[in-house]
Amino acid sequence: MPHSIPVGVLGASGYSGRELCALIAGHPNLSLAFATANAQRGTTLRVRAGNAVHAIPLVGADEVDLSSAELVFAALPHGASAEWVAKVIAAGARVVDLSSDLRPGFGGSGHGAPAGVPADAPYGLTELYREQIKGARVVANPGCYATSILLALLPLAKAGLIAPGATVSIASASGVSGAGASPKLELLFAEVTENYRAYSVGNSHRHLHEMRATMTELGVDCDLLFTPHLLPIDRGILSTITVPLTRPVGDAMAPFRDAYANEPFIELTNDLPALTEVAHRNVLRLNARTPQGVRAPTMLVFSALDNLVKGAAGQALQNANLMLGLDETAGLPR
Amino acid sequence: MPHSIPVGVLGASGYSGRELCALIAGHPNLSLAFATANAQRGTTLRVRAGNAVHAIPLVGADEVDLSSAELVFAALPHGASAEWVAKVIAAGARVVDLSSDLRPGFGGSGHGAPAGVPADAPYGLTELYREQIKGARVVANPGCYATSILLALLPLAKAGLIAPGATVSIASASGVSGAGASPKLELLFAEVTENYRAYSVGNSHRHLHEMRATMTELGVDCDLLFTPHLLPIDRGILSTITVPLTRPVGDAMAPFRDAYANEPFIELTNDLPALTEVAHRNVLRLNARTPQGVRAPTMLVFSALDNLVKGAAGQALQNANLMLGLDETAGLPR
Amino acid sequence: MPHSIPVGVLGASGYSGRELCALIAGHPNLSLAFATANAQRGTTLRVRAGNAVHAIPLVGADEVDLSSAELVFAALPHGASAEWVAKVIAAGARVVDLSSDLRPGFGGSGHGAPAGVPADAPYGLTELYREQIKGARVVANPGCYATSILLALLPLAKAGLIAPGATVSIASASGVSGAGASPKLELLFAEVTENYRAYSVGNSHRHLHEMRATMTELGVDCDLLFTPHLLPIDRGILSTITVPLTRPVGDAMAPFRDAYANEPFIELTNDLPALTEVAHRNVLRLNARTPQGVRAPTMLVFSALDNLVKGAAGQALQNANLMLGLDETAGLPR
Amino acid sequence: MPHSIPVGVLGASGYSGRELCALIAGHPNLSLAFATANAQRGTTLRVRAGNAVHAIPLVGADEVDLSSAELVFAALPHGASAEWVAKVIAAGARVVDLSSDLRPGFGGSGHGAPAGVPADAPYGLTELYREQIKGARVVANPGCYATSILLALLPLAKAGLIAPGATVSIASASGVSGAGASPKLELLFAEVTENYRAYSVGNSHRHLHEMRATMTELGVDCDLLFTPHLLPIDRGILSTITVPLTRPVGDAMAPFRDAYANEPFIELTNDLPALTEVAHRNVLRLNARTPQGVRAPTMLVFSALDNLVKGAAGQALQNANLMLGLDETAGLPR
Repeated sequence: MPHSIPVGVLGASGYSGRELCALIAGHPNLSLAFATANAQRGTTLRVRAGNAVHAIPLVGADEVDLSSAELVFAALPHGASAEWVAKVIAAGARVVDLSSDLRPGFGGSGHGAPAGVPADAPYGLTELYREQIKGARVVANPGCYATSILLALLPLAKAGLIAPGATVSIASASGVSGAGASPKLELLFAEVTENYRAYSVGNSHRHLHEMRATMTELGVDCDLLFTPHLLPIDRGILSTITVPLTRPVGDAMAPFRDAYANEPFIELTNDLPALTEVAHRNVLRLNARTPQGVRAPTMLVFSALDNLVKGAAGQALQNANLMLGLDETAGLPR
Repeated sequence: MPHSIPVGVLGASGYSGRELCALIAGHPNLSLAFATANAQRGTTLRVRAGNAVHAIPLVGADEVDLSSAELVFAALPHGASAEWVAKVIAAGARVVDLSSDLRPGFGGSGHGAPAGVPADAPYGLTELYREQIKGARVVANPGCYATSILLALLPLAKAGLIAPGATVSIASASGVSGAGASPKLELLFAEVTENYRAYSVGNSHRHLHEMRATMTELGVDCDLLFTPHLLPIDRGILSTITVPLTRPVGDAMAPFRDAYANEPFIELTNDLPALTEVAHRNVLRLNARTPQGVRAPTMLVFSALDNLVKGAAGQALQNANLMLGLDETAGLPR
Repeated sequence: MPHSIPVGVLGASGYSGRELCALIAGHPNLSLAFATANAQRGTTLRVRAGNAVHAIPLVGADEVDLSSAELVFAALPHGASAEWVAKVIAAGARVVDLSSDLRPGFGGSGHGAPAGVPADAPYGLTELYREQIKGARVVANPGCYATSILLALLPLAKAGLIAPGATVSIASASGVSGAGASPKLELLFAEVTENYRAYSVGNSHRHLHEMRATMTELGVDCDLLFTPHLLPIDRGILSTITVPLTRPVGDAMAPFRDAYANEPFIELTNDLPALTEVAHRNVLRLNARTPQGVRAPTMLVFSALDNLVKGAAGQALQNANLMLGLDETAGLPR
Repeated sequence: MPHSIPVGVLGASGYSGRELCALIAGHPNLSLAFATANAQRGTTLRVRAGNAVHAIPLVGADEVDLSSAELVFAALPHGASAEWVAKVIAAGARVVDLSSDLRPGFGGSGHGAPAGVPADAPYGLTELYREQIKGARVVANPGCYATSILLALLPLAKAGLIAPGATVSIASASGVSGAGASPKLELLFAEVTENYRAYSVGNSHRHLHEMRATMTELGVDCDLLFTPHLLPIDRGILSTITVPLTRPVGDAMAPFRDAYANEPFIELTNDLPALTEVAHRNVLRLNARTPQGVRAPTMLVFSALDNLVKGAAGQALQNANLMLGLDETAGLPR
């Protein structure tokens, strides 16, 4: 085992931040230099890793020496993250930013990267940008929905199967942890239990920017129609994706087997994926079908992941492993 | 108030059958002549209606005099219903059949209507076939998914808005009561809680037959791509429907306001419908949007209903009211 | 039908206040004069009653003419209610106060009844204080836990069965709606689902005061040991109560049949009560048993109610019916 | 690392059996020789262990060579287990029996140990019988409720604090996985969600036998009054225990600190334990309080565990570790 590499977490009190702390605590090559949570400073966060419980002191962001870490995970609110990314870079450390601040498609007023933040931070969709991530100082970690959808579309894009000009219709459903740990009326148990509804419909969700930018980058000229829904569960995202194809496909799974033959965190299944199968794991489970009774060549793709792991903290750690020259799979639950 | 009309329920131990008994108990013009449940014969079913609880004796189907009812609700398993429909007709009573046996699109081997069952029983989608239902002796009550989807497509079909040859993509999610009250491993609490998954995908669900037949009847040449999902809730169906349009539409709600101006059980909303809003009510709540960033004219429609009420027992009673010459809204919760 | 009596609701945005508005909307003899909710003033509250939906305009408490109502329900936070009770009395109307401010056992610093509030407002446990409630201008409506527990102990107290000096051990479990509609971290869906825990243990819960005072009033010298728990459900309280007896009892249900023979809202059951059986109903379901293998004479009592109905709004309306000379059961769901 | 010791699982398709397979797959010193599940023979069970997924072939019990394992876990239904224990012993292997067949208090008609099963198999409450377990060939693993309750009473018994002749009142609540993976109507999601109820009340639960026998063995002359409840969650048991004491106790936690100072799987907490804190862990979390306002010296004890881990498979593995001379904590999640 190499000596332990110190890493830090900014924003350790949110659901993603806590998940990061747990993963770091169980990582064979990393140690936790600091974990910040301004409102909870002075308290202790307990996380489980492997077969043990770890007690992590939470401190204020203004109390830490950013240079004590070789890499920092920024799990801060959207809009508040970019300035901390700049501070971390100035301190000489690498950064994985879990906010949307540096993701492709952003950069408008209010979201422009401040001085000191590279404009070309790779987008941390590991399976697509693995080589760019390896040498990066800053990586913009994808959104949870974006991960579940782009990993389902990527093999079809590479195979030239997505019909140009067509609309890819995406119905995703997410557990409530995706909405964060801030108390809001609509996230109270009494409001969510026995309920189900869509939200941010009509292509108004934040994650569309990075999805569209990535499809463009892949040279695919399609329209995305993305409709998220809120599930009465804690964690997990299932995306049900209808893809108009350029031509009929006999074996719907073939493009996925081709693209993901050697991917450690993609599970191609014969059955339809279910959310309990991916909870607490850094995997995306995927199944694809060609439906009967539809004249236009069409594919249905189902992808499932844990929004806090493969959709956030796990993928962030996967990227950090690459940035630090470690085994990509180190410390990641499968 | 007219004197009370006797009605019967075949199959009162399932979730739909119980809901029927409760609605009948609270109906101002109906009385319950009998309620059968072979495996529970001799026991008592307790249901709530209005502000009171009613105790209903359950008897075997072979014990009842079918002619003691003017109308019988058949809430029996698919495949087992048609023969009982024939018996009821022979006994001189009217029937609302909640199974799929007599629905449009059925009639193949194993599902053919037996001797004594009219081949042209109207399909009980009340808002579409109200006039035919009024004089009918037999009505084939729609499936729960079919109701939620067809009522969302009907106004667009009438307005000529559904693009010919196109694929209408439908992602529906249902509570577990839709799967019935038979003990199955995959319906155990421990298997459903914190879970979500698709099932019967690739256009393999039973309800597709009646949906396709109805679209054809409406003169719409489109393909349906229907994907149901199982929600960790008791009751409710939300359908999220992507409709390719023949032309751009400025006001997405206009076709629905036109079609449903006087419908007592259709609620057009400004907000996105949620399942808790329709629980225990005989309503379909609906909202439609035209999404941004999609070049092809497209509409998103969201419809919510209670699968046991507007999706089954409530709609059955709505049809029975019409068949018996009663006020269509009598005894139905809004 | 008598002409309709105007009543008002102070605090209509909380879970109890909304339940009150729904019950009033469905009441045959009452009309809603006003419903206040300061933070939501100007919005509309939709509630279901009978087979219809009612739209209720929410106004600020400072906007209403309290004298426009013959009776006002105060569903305000503990500590904030007493001053409004005084205002209502000054305006000439009657009051049912759902807060703890006027309940027996309170009156200490910070909770003293202000000038203008009668010090002897009857405690609104209807089954015990029905006669006093009939003529009252102000009634202190009981807490939800207190209702579930006192109604279980009352018949045993009247029969002289509770062992003097002994400890009555009470384990209650409540759905989250009992904690109100204010956003708090510990009430988020992600914190409550798949969880269960005790709280306010060691006899520290607010409702103990009224329970102890009532037991003293009944002449019973026992100690209560009350432990509430938080359930991952929306509504309902189940209390499991261990009562040391003065003597062995052959038929555990006999004291309850004696005491509650003519009570319209008490259901004595042969089976153990379950929370889904009482949801949305103004009933308390109760079963009692004498356990095997315990030498000291002991009774186990199980009581179930809906914390928002029989535990709050329903009981409040039951009291209001008595105060206004109406049929006690009017407008109350059974 | 020593070479791997082969162990087998009889009954791998139930919830406890699956948990056992997962724990064994992740154990540093054990390998899985076989896993039987008669109805699922020929299928593959997938379990997660550490950061990997393992595929386990399920075979019929009649297909396995019992002597291929050094130790066998019998996770068979109550009544069906004892004969398999005898077969395993005859084959020369050790056994941890998770059924109630060999537990103290059993042995009546229908439950007598068959020929070949030792009458004095130690009861596998590890913290109490660690020394006897170390050399045992057969261990009777405790029930889940019994574990949660006995570990809470043990320190008080040892300290002579439980009042002789008194009644210890126990209200426990369990997730549905404790009822097993057999499809039953009352365990369907639609029956359990939003519900809560007691069952097996009046001291009729199977686990009372082993609890009473253990208290007698400890020389405590008290009566247990045990009331289990069914929670709408997957896994976890919380026991709320009222203990009449021989004398007042200043520091309620002191007896527990004394008894459990060196126990690796007992967590003494300052806060009240919650079920999400113990899920998937082999720990019992415990807090004790002395309530105010109760004249008789009394203690309230709260204990929480995962019924499938510390309440079943985890404790079974803890015992197996001792029987095989391994580190007691090997392979057990904390």
